[in-house]
Amino acid sequence: MSLIKSSPVAVSDEKLMLLLAAAQRAADAAADVTLRYFRSDMNVVNKAGEHAFDPVTEADRLAELAIRASLKVDFPDIGFHGEEHAAIAGGSGLTWVVDPIDGTRAFMSGMPLWGTLIGLFNGRDAILGLMDQPFMAERYTAIGSQANLLARDGLHSLQTRKNVTLEQATMYCTTPDMFDTAESKAAFQRVRETARLTRYGGDCYAYAMLAAGHVDVVLDCDLKPYDILALIPLIEAAGGVVSNWEGNSAVDGGYVVAAGSRQLHAQALSLLQIT
Amino acid sequence: MSLIKSSPVAVSDEKLMLLLAAAQRAADAAADVTLRYFRSDMNVVNKAGEHAFDPVTEADRLAELAIRASLKVDFPDIGFHGEEHAAIAGGSGLTWVVDPIDGTRAFMSGMPLWGTLIGLFNGRDAILGLMDQPFMAERYTAIGSQANLLARDGLHSLQTRKNVTLEQATMYCTTPDMFDTAESKAAFQRVRETARLTRYGGDCYAYAMLAAGHVDVVLDCDLKPYDILALIPLIEAAGGVVSNWEGNSAVDGGYVVAAGSRQLHAQALSLLQIT
Repeated sequence: MSLIKSSPVAVSDEKLMLLLAAAQRAADAAADVTLRYFRSDMNVVNKAGEHAFDPVTEADRLAELAIRASLKVDFPDIGFHGEEHAAIAGGSGLTWVVDPIDGTRAFMSGMPLWGTLIGLFNGRDAILGLMDQPFMAERYTAIGSQANLLARDGLHSLQTRKNVTLEQATMYCTTPDMFDTAESKAAFQRVRETARLTRYGGDCYAYAMLAAGHVDVVLDCDLKPYDILALIPLIEAAGGVVSNWEGNSAVDGGYVVAAGSRQLHAQALSLLQIT
Repeated sequence: MSLIKSSPVAVSDEKLMLLLAAAQRAADAAADVTLRYFRSDMNVVNKAGEHAFDPVTEADRLAELAIRASLKVDFPDIGFHGEEHAAIAGGSGLTWVVDPIDGTRAFMSGMPLWGTLIGLFNGRDAILGLMDQPFMAERYTAIGSQANLLARDGLHSLQTRKNVTLEQATMYCTTPDMFDTAESKAAFQRVRETARLTRYGGDCYAYAMLAAGHVDVVLDCDLKPYDILALIPLIEAAGGVVSNWEGNSAVDGGYVVAAGSRQLHAQALSLLQIT
């Protein structure tokens, strides 16, 4: 489901700070839920029937409820677009775009590479992004041109790695099995054969590592808006570029390519486009 | 390079405790090195030339030196078989088998799914295993029938997940690109098509999650002794089974299959064997 577009709502810097504070409180509320379930026995419900395995855990549902309740207290007139529950329109023209647990399969496997995603959409662009990894006590946030990581050892400003060609790049994609058309598979192979190193897994954490300058390219397909929207401000404020495979805005998800620099993004995009 | 076999050296329970204490001190020494390099700019040396990308970092080399020095102080007559430096024979018939950073590619990408592996070989079997993940402050250890995780929130006894069939299993393998023969690729596909969920990445951390009951099967190929030896006691003491694809001892690495129970291991093994 695409996000509903409108003229972008103007948000002052001061309001943006308050919105980020609200997102942080919501992430705290989500962490109270997710950490209770992570590495415990969970009740896994199979959303998509027996064949497609799409795990939804109680943690997912309850964390989204906790986030929605927390955000609503602070900003009752902002809409909500989540993974687990029906979208709610707000009067403000702004919409929170939330994935309570991005990387559910990692979460189920005890792997710490999952995160809580909270983004804010102004009708055209992603203007605030937060990715929280509470098991490792890492919180990635971005508003305006500031991307930060708050970790156990303090606050770090995030910068992507520059001056890397695709031939020198470390690339992540969730799984090579996700490319469902011959064209996308071939496009992925072209990029993979050029990149220095391709790794699988990672989900939202791979985008965070791109923002932090440890990964150069991330490729994905079939993303939903809530899988990517919160990560866009993080990548852009850290100096990276993210778009869909046609080079347009990634706010609606779909096929997504992120890179640490404009040049690297252009190089990857040219290989992805069907010739 | 295979390990040199001999009649197994008898080691008392009391000595095993002292050996585990020595392995813990060596892991502390390694962590002092690895945490200085993780997520910093590293000097990556390309061991295998331009085509095969086999990164060896200063962290790898220095951590192995730190481990070797620490172990030698405590037990000067035990041999040493590491990744980075030449093997040293000891007079005792025992050999430390060490990978300072298993998961170098994860390490380079800022991903926390790497670990320091310290195992002890008695000439026939792996009798002590330690996997340390210092960035997350997690240390997995095993001697005898005891497998433990020491984490920020305390000490946990490890148990694999039981009563899981391959059809219900979560499986990990480092990457689908690693299977280098048509037979191994086909064997992997047979298991993958049966397993409920297959995930890539993880390296030693996937085996730790198997011991902890969050992952059910791990498949690998082309492992060296130092990639697996330290993990064998961990899996076995937690109730799992690990062997090569022929069903024999995994101490020399090669093609490895680990599972949370004897039944699940047998089911995976029957699909892996070439018919």
